Amino acid sequence: MDRIRIAIVGYGKIAQDQHVPSIAANHRFELVATVSRSSGAPGGIPCFGSVEDLLASGPKVDAVAICTPPSVRYEIARVCLEAGLHSLLEKPPGVTLGECEELVRIAGERRVSLFTTWHAQYNPAVEAAAERLKGERIDTMRIVWREDVRKWHPGQQWIWAPGGFGVFDPGINALSIASRIFPGALIVRGAELLFPSNRETPIAARLAMVSPAATGAIEAEFDWRHSGGEAWDIEVRTAAGETLTLSEGGSRLAVNGEQVAAPGHGEYPGIYAHFAELVDGGTSHVDLAPLRISADAFLLGKRVQVEPFED
Amino acid sequence: MDRIRIAIVGYGKIAQDQHVPSIAANHRFELVATVSRSSGAPGGIPCFGSVEDLLASGPKVDAVAICTPPSVRYEIARVCLEAGLHSLLEKPPGVTLGECEELVRIAGERRVSLFTTWHAQYNPAVEAAAERLKGERIDTMRIVWREDVRKWHPGQQWIWAPGGFGVFDPGINALSIASRIFPGALIVRGAELLFPSNRETPIAARLAMVSPAATGAIEAEFDWRHSGGEAWDIEVRTAAGETLTLSEGGSRLAVNGEQVAAPGHGEYPGIYAHFAELVDGGTSHVDLAPLRISADAFLLGKRVQVEPFED
Repeated sequence: MDRIRIAIVGYGKIAQDQHVPSIAANHRFELVATVSRSSGAPGGIPCFGSVEDLLASGPKVDAVAICTPPSVRYEIARVCLEAGLHSLLEKPPGVTLGECEELVRIAGERRVSLFTTWHAQYNPAVEAAAERLKGERIDTMRIVWREDVRKWHPGQQWIWAPGGFGVFDPGINALSIASRIFPGALIVRGAELLFPSNRETPIAARLAMVSPAATGAIEAEFDWRHSGGEAWDIEVRTAAGETLTLSEGGSRLAVNGEQVAAPGHGEYPGIYAHFAELVDGGTSHVDLAPLRISADAFLLGKRVQVEPFED
Repeated sequence: MDRIRIAIVGYGKIAQDQHVPSIAANHRFELVATVSRSSGAPGGIPCFGSVEDLLASGPKVDAVAICTPPSVRYEIARVCLEAGLHSLLEKPPGVTLGECEELVRIAGERRVSLFTTWHAQYNPAVEAAAERLKGERIDTMRIVWREDVRKWHPGQQWIWAPGGFGVFDPGINALSIASRIFPGALIVRGAELLFPSNRETPIAARLAMVSPAATGAIEAEFDWRHSGGEAWDIEVRTAAGETLTLSEGGSRLAVNGEQVAAPGHGEYPGIYAHFAELVDGGTSHVDLAPLRISADAFLLGKRVQVEPFED
């Protein structure tokens, strides 16, 4: 089978740290180009200033991995899909549900594979938790996602601009794990969004959800005002009395307090293994649940003004 | 063919003014019950206090028309769909996209018809506009939806509560027309949401959208602070130079300034004619675009605080 010739679009930290090595380690892929305004590329690989340049004068490509900031992802993905390229999107797949739905439509029309990745879902511990919870009745789920925005997003202004998601930028990772492992739909029934008085996006949020698969409370708490180390935890209690705890952002699983080994590819190698399956099988994998839950929280959330935030 | 035995759930103004006469005028339906906490029903029809009561001790029903306020619609629709009843939902079909998606899943599982109605879409002038714009390239679209909230929602507190939509309650009617007539997806790229300092939902909003079918600006302006009569207008300019104007909430169509006759059923008779087709054909009709556009506007909207609003 021919190798899938792939270009990386957007050559920032996540592309360099995760996508380049994962592509290099997967024999189904061959990295043939990058697209970057800052001309970045690993040794010997040509770099183009835009996807239009790549399509006009680059090497032949079959697929792209789009790792740009989310606000420009839609226009780039649209050009790539229209050109018949299989497209992998970093998380979140867009800044609105509308643009994601339109990409789905174009991918269907052009019969190419579209893959909306949520990297945390490909953590082996997350996959193991999903397997254990399949078909279970759930009592409660509690998501706690606390970190220090000054440590994790120093000086990043786009997260505070309208459409920048604020604390939902990390929170959507938690929602991507929660919606992957939960054996039923997660439906927002109430939310509180805490906006610093000088900012356009929330610095903290609380969500109350329900599910046909759950009898008790499903709650999420996101907070960026946490300077004493991170908490990236999800705890699920089943009706059968088992407690599953995913900690460290989905990388460790414990059942009733006992650590469970979860062997597997790891996040990005798992993503590329799945992308190869999609391309080879001629199918797409589109998961908009984390973005939908976020949009629903903004739609019905109570806005609370809190003290200004200065970087 | 047997008549479709239908119950109306929620017996408020819209049920009495629109649903009862439209059901009575359509020979495919027979109104056999209502569900209402205030015990309302047209002469001779039994009324039940809940859908559970109706299912347990009422006459046999095949379908329901759910006309309650939106916040309780999901729980009621879930019970009805699970019980195998074809379900027609007043607009908006829910307060979140998540609950609507879950209803779609249940309807598919139970193989019953789910119909998310947006009454303004069934205006004959709207249908005529959609027909004229099919396949056209669009230059610009401008939506202006201004009314006096004191006149149209006197003393209604739920519209100001979180999840009450605020000015999107009428605005979503405009979006339901716009998304019906526009020959391509409408994608929100920016929004301004004007919140009174003492209220939880916006009193006015501006949306900037794009579409693969349009070359120019697509704009919407919703405003509840308009005391000098209503403006419920949508103007579309095509690339071919034609100007379509839908006015009076979608009830009148003009092309290049000339009124165009648009014969047809009328909004609610059209809705029931379509519901009968869906039930007879064993299919569903689910349109979440107006709700998705609204959620996207809240997700990336810039919040602007404006003067307090007192009823």
